[in-house]
Amino acid sequence: MEKNDANEIAMATTLAAKMRRGDLFSEKCPSREVLKHVTSRWGVLILVALLGGTHRFSNLRRKVGGVSERMLAQTLQWLEGDGIVLRQSYPVVPPHVEYSLTPLGRAAAEKVSALAEWIEENLPEIIDVQERKCAPPTPAR
Amino acid sequence: MEKNDANEIAMATTLAAKMRRGDLFSEKCPSREVLKHVTSRWGVLILVALLGGTHRFSNLRRKVGGVSERMLAQTLQWLEGDGIVLRQSYPVVPPHVEYSLTPLGRAAAEKVSALAEWIEENLPEIIDVQERKCAPPTPAR
Repeated sequence: MEKNDANEIAMATTLAAKMRRGDLFSEKCPSREVLKHVTSRWGVLILVALLGGTHRFSNLRRKVGGVSERMLAQTLQWLEGDGIVLRQSYPVVPPHVEYSLTPLGRAAAEKVSALAEWIEENLPEIIDVQERKCAPPTPAR
Repeated sequence: MEKNDANEIAMATTLAAKMRRGDLFSEKCPSREVLKHVTSRWGVLILVALLGGTHRFSNLRRKVGGVSERMLAQTLQWLEGDGIVLRQSYPVVPPHVEYSLTPLGRAAAEKVSALAEWIEENLPEIIDVQERKCAPPTPAR
């Protein structure tokens, strides 16, 4: 009986902890780690690519310009660990591995994609600002 | 006359280059640099904080848990350079410097904030996935 009580308390505590939403401003919050994965240099581009459909590793590598095999594998592993990316391997020769978004991941990828889209669309304006900031000041008369 | 022609061609070329939208999948595209600033570890949190209103340096530092003075200054400088953050200093003693979003920056911050919001809201589900992945497999009978 006592053991059951303790179990119930432990379960309720875990449940309460799980129901709490994250707080990114708080240094120790585990949401920081998820943010790191999703907004990492390659994470963003992988998510945008996968929003377009399932990809094999080699396809992803070709699409995401400049990514190394090591970093692609590492980032996919992070995203798989967070339940954002699904890795499916088919027992054939040569091995066939496919990556896609989970339903949870699709929602994240849509947010990331909206940001990526914004950057691409506004790049001309941003470059314009950058150039004006770099321009030498008009000489005083 | 010839000099004017050359000037016009140069101006048209610059304009054409500026009108081109970015392509984040392309390794050499300058949009990659903007993505780096906006999705950097502290960039995301600074943008979310500034969406809530103008902040002084010390206020930002308090709000964004764990950021060092150096990294906060560096990230603000990046974002200022991209025309996303506005830095206003008032010539008083002691010096008073305020940071806010430009109209361009507000749009970026809204996208970033939607992603941050998604992570905070879905953290319980993500932690749940992470724990299931870490759990030892059910022993086979």
